[in-house]
Formats: sequence, C-alpha cells, structure tokens
Amino acid sequence: HTYSTFCRANNDAMKEPMFFGQNVNVARYDQQKYPFFEKLIEKQLSFFWRPEEVDLSTDRTEYSDLPANEQHIFISNLKYQTLLDSVQGRSPNVALLPLVSIPELETWIETWAFSETIHSRSYTHIIRNIVANPSLVFDDIVTNEEITKRAISVTEHYDELIALTNYMYANEIDLDKDDEFRKKIKTALYLTVVSVNVLEAIRFYVSFACSFSFAERSLMEGNAKVIKLIARDEALHLSGTQNMLNLMAEGKDDPELAEIARENKEAAINIFREAAEQEKQWAEYLFKDGSMIGLNASILKDYVEYITNVRLKALRFDPIFENRSNPLPWMNNWLVSDNVQVAPQESEISSYLVGQVDSKVGAEDFSDFDL
Amino acid sequence: HTYSTFCRANNDAMKEPMFFGQNVNVARYDQQKYPFFEKLIEKQLSFFWRPEEVDLSTDRTEYSDLPANEQHIFISNLKYQTLLDSVQGRSPNVALLPLVSIPELETWIETWAFSETIHSRSYTHIIRNIVANPSLVFDDIVTNEEITKRAISVTEHYDELIALTNYMYANEIDLDKDDEFRKKIKTALYLTVVSVNVLEAIRFYVSFACSFSFAERSLMEGNAKVIKLIARDEALHLSGTQNMLNLMAEGKDDPELAEIARENKEAAINIFREAAEQEKQWAEYLFKDGSMIGLNASILKDYVEYITNVRLKALRFDPIFENRSNPLPWMNNWLVSDNVQVAPQESEISSYLVGQVDSKVGAEDFSDFDL
Ligand SMILES: [Ca+2]
Ligand SMILES: [Ca+2]
Repeated sequence: HTYSTFCRANNDAMKEPMFFGQNVNVARYDQQKYPFFEKLIEKQLSFFWRPEEVDLSTDRTEYSDLPANEQHIFISNLKYQTLLDSVQGRSPNVALLPLVSIPELETWIETWAFSETIHSRSYTHIIRNIVANPSLVFDDIVTNEEITKRAISVTEHYDELIALTNYMYANEIDLDKDDEFRKKIKTALYLTVVSVNVLEAIRFYVSFACSFSFAERSLMEGNAKVIKLIARDEALHLSGTQNMLNLMAEGKDDPELAEIARENKEAAINIFREAAEQEKQWAEYLFKDGSMIGLNASILKDYVEYITNVRLKALRFDPIFENRSNPLPWMNNWLVSDNVQVAPQESEISSYLVGQVDSKVGAEDFSDFDL
Repeated sequence: HTYSTFCRANNDAMKEPMFFGQNVNVARYDQQKYPFFEKLIEKQLSFFWRPEEVDLSTDRTEYSDLPANEQHIFISNLKYQTLLDSVQGRSPNVALLPLVSIPELETWIETWAFSETIHSRSYTHIIRNIVANPSLVFDDIVTNEEITKRAISVTEHYDELIALTNYMYANEIDLDKDDEFRKKIKTALYLTVVSVNVLEAIRFYVSFACSFSFAERSLMEGNAKVIKLIARDEALHLSGTQNMLNLMAEGKDDPELAEIARENKEAAINIFREAAEQEKQWAEYLFKDGSMIGLNASILKDYVEYITNVRLKALRFDPIFENRSNPLPWMNNWLVSDNVQVAPQESEISSYLVGQVDSKVGAEDFSDFDL
C-alpha cells in the first residue's frame, strides 16, 4: 500500500469501502456510494458563517462585571473549547485523508475540518474582546494541568492511527497480505472515530451547556450567539461520525470492520465511560470556587450522564448511566434542530441527522437503518 | 521527530519557522508571525461562494450547438481542471499539515484546500449541466492518456514529500541530528511548493484562458462566471505559494531553506520549464481538430510563455522566454484584481498580493520585500 495524491489506477469509487480502499483520485460528486455524506457537505456549506458577523460589544463589560468564580467558569470553558477545536481543526484531515477511499467522504472530512477552523477563529474573536491580553489565555492552554490532561485523551487515538498510517506507507505494507497489521490499523481507525464522536457529541455539548447557561441569565449573549452557530455545525459533525460508526458496525461497507466493532464493543464503551468521568471531573474544576444560578457541578454531571446515554443509543449501545430526562431542558432553545434534519424520506437514506440533543433515539429507530 | 495532533510541549509559535518546527498545538489568531497568511485566510473567507449560486441554464444548449472541435476543447479543459483541483483539494492538507509549525499558516493551508473542494464541486455542477452522462467525462480523467500523463507531473513532488514525511515520523528521525535527511526533506518541501505554484499560477491560468475565450464570444457564460470565481480564489492561492517561496529564499524564516533554494535554483526553474512545455503540448491536443475565433494553439502557447515569465519574476527568477506583452489582453476583464489587493501600506506587510495576471512585477518591486 503506497500513497499517491492522485492514484492513477482506474477504479470505481462506488465499489470502494469508506477507508483502506484505493485512495481517491477524481473528486466527483455526480454519484455517491453514501449520499448521506454529500448531504452533510451541502448542509455544512449552507451553514457557512464568520465570527465577525456576531456583535460581541455587550460581552466585554458583562465579563468584567462577573464575579471571579463565574469568570473562571467562563474562561476555562473557552480554553477547553479552544483545545478541542485546535485538535479538530487539523486531525480529521491529518488522520483520515490518507486513508479515505470514496470522494464524498473525503470532501466531507475536509469540509468538516475547515468548519472547525472557523470555530477556532471564533474563540480568538471572543477572547480578544473580553480580555486585554489574549496571550495569557492561549498560553495557559498548554500549561494548565486541568486542560493538558484532557489533551491526552482527545489526541491519543488520533496519534496512534496516524503513527500506524505513517508506518504502513513508509514500509509499503500490503494490507491484503498482513492480516495482523490490517486488523490493528482498522481497530485504530474504529476507536479513533469513536473517540472523535465522544469529543464532539459529549465533550462539546457539556461545554455548550456552560456557554448557554450564562445567556439563560441574559449574560454573555454575544458569546452564546457564536456558540449557537458552532453547535449548529457540531450537530452535523456528530452525525458524520455516528453514521461512519454505524456503517462500520453494519458490515456492508467492510465486513472486517463489523467484526472489529463487535470485538471492541467494550473498548468503545470505555471511551465513552472515561470521557464522561473526565467531564464530571471537569465540572468539579469549573465550579470549584462556587456555582451560578441555574448551573452547578451536580446538574452538569447529570447532564454528562444524560448526554452520554443519548450518544450511546445513537450507536445502538446500551446506556451506561441511570435513565433520566434532560436535566437542562433549556438547552433545546439553543440547539437549532429544525434545519439540521436532512429529508429522511429520500429513498437512498433511511437514516437521518440525529444531531439534536434531545432526540429520543432508541434502537427501534434504527430498525430500517440502511445507508 | 514524532507527530502529535496537539503537541503538549509549551512553545512560542512566533519563534517557529513555517515548517519543521514544533507542530502547532493551539489554533490561535491573536498574534501572527506572518500576518500575510492571516490576511489570505480573511480574504478567502470573504470570497466564500457556492457553485449552485451560478445559473448555468443557457450553457446546456450552447454546448450542444458547439462544433465538435470546440466541444473537445471545452470538455477537455474541464477534465484537466478537474484533475488539477482533485489534486489540490487534498494535497496541501495531506502533504503540508504534518509539517507546518505556525498556526496562521496551518489554517491558511486548510482554508486553501477547502476552497479547492468548492472548485471540484463546480466542475460536477458544470459537467452535470451539459452532458447527459457525467460518468463518461469523469471516468475519462483516469484513462485519457493526455490527462494522466499530466497527473504524474502535478503529483510527483507532493508524493515524494509525503513519502519522506511518513518515513520521518515512522522512524522517529531526529532532524537536528540527521543532516542528510533534513536537507533531503527540506529540498522536497521547497520543490513541492514550487511545483504547486506552477500548478496554480501557470497551469490553471492557461485553463482559464480557454474557459474565458468562449465567453468572449458570448458562449458558455455560466461556465465563465464559475471560472471567474475560481480565478478569484486562485489569485490568493498563488500569492500564498509565492510568499512561502520568497520567505524560504530570504532565509530569515529558515536559513537552511535559503541555501536549499539557491542550490536548487535550476531544479526550480526546470519545473517551470517542463510545465510550460507540457502546457504547450496540451494546447496542441486541445486544438488538434481546429481552432476557434480568438484562440488557437499558437496564441495559447504565447500565453504560456508570457505567464511563465510573469510567475518566474514574482519569485525573482529571470524570465526563460522571450519578453512579450500579454497576447490575451482580454483575460484582464475576467481576472478580478481590485479586491485581491491587501492593503500594502500596513506596516507589518511590505509585500502584497500579486495575483492579477497582468501585474508588472519586476525584481525592483521586491526591494523592500520583508514579510
Ligand atoms: Ca466539530
Ligand atoms: Ca487552487
């Protein structure tokens, strides 16, 4: 297996698996093996926005008037969001582009990662507005222990997959002949996509709860407007990884990946469990100097459990926490769901975008899931 | 040298070179070592467009009414553009993201590659409109010998750089200690950026001449509107690679790259020379069944020489062809230059975007070039 930026071998991309087939040559969108990814691209393009469109003028004085414990919550949350989107702005491209083998998924990966760079640009826009010296905030992201220990778990699967990919191409490993390596790198891919789903579908949503809780009290509303746009994108991103994972688990795309998904079910669920645990610890850190009206460590931890269950169900896993209703029902006012829906009646997709936080997605909803 | 999607070592990105320093960790835009790249990002974002915005309805019948030799010119030109943007949509990300070490350049690379995916989407939009079976067109891109032999020269430098990068990370090569490898991979980077500059600043402009020549006769004007938007983006892209190359040659960013640029001057100029030769052969192929009003193989070849000289001068190389004025002066009507200019008076940039095709850029204009 060697890599070329334009494989000259003639192939039919409609017959390639999502990953590990022949690398994409012609970028074409007249036909798609999985029209779902083309729909995600179209949605993402229709969502295009720039941070500068959002007026942040009232946030500055509101931020300086916040009590110290709330400033800590607000700015720490932004630092964590900055870390997560720093990773997401590059990693889908670095880790997945060298492996992808169908054009609509390749372009979805690039469109997805590009939109993360817009998110990163937002944080600079927001931070520059509220603090005199943004460097103090940005520099802290790599020195603050609470942040950096989260950096490890959001990057370790990506980094392992990238290392295996470099090894594969550097040594021209023939995946058809090296069963052990093939299984190893496919497992790394599967767990990476799980870990990215957890990053976007759980970690980010916990951070959104913090952002929106200020705006629920009519504070930092410029910030909330930006985060609302980010959340609208995020609903697409998490649908992307959910659908990749479900396609893998189904086995029609690549039977071996279905086997890997089965064998690694516990490993996958553990990624969810550990992330939920970390997010709960993070809630303790955020609220260490006191809680705020409408949000405290305990409610945020309940939300972590609630959202983790929702995301597990979307992957047809059993919930790992006690069943509960959404402890932050006002979140639904901030999570735009109506325009995220991609017409589910279209014959070629029987799945649909399940981005909204309160979607009651149970196994039965996927009974005819057949992308 | 190992790779991580978020290097946890604290560093000051303002002191990193463009490439081969510590991989970027925090995506931040509050400070830039090279504000030029941040300005490119802002321009590119302000240029955002979608192919569906352009009405192509009159092109369909016009295309079917074209004589066979003109249909051949039109569709072959689109195939070549599709090849070039298929490569450009992925390769800046695949080849450069694993090596870049300053955030504004990293985000420029991603923004740049993303905009190429919009270009690729345009070709599907155009081709779907004019032919009943787009597959015949797209499939031909990997089987048509005239196209595929061009694919080799637009990918070979990218592919070599990617192979060396995979090797470097797979073997954890310490660039500080392995002088020979370091020089080898830096040379590959330099020649890759030269080759990308040639792709975007010469090959694409030759293809633009063909697209616009139809519209000069009031034919295929929908197509020309799309290509005009592509050309507007392209002016940014070529400025990006020109500025990277000039920064490398100056040596302030990385003294060793200046040495490499000097030692590889002939190799770099040969990339220009070979591409010009290929584009002239391509002109023969396009016009093999006859020329059209306003454009024939001979004029297009003159344009190849003219534009090659212009691009060489922008890199402070001597022209390799006879000096001539623009043989296709009407091109300037299609190449929007006014809004491409980035305020040159700003103190931190004394260079500026030199995207417009007719810019009279001589060595003297770069006397105070000091990014
Ligand atoms: Ca995301
Ligand atoms: Ca380009």
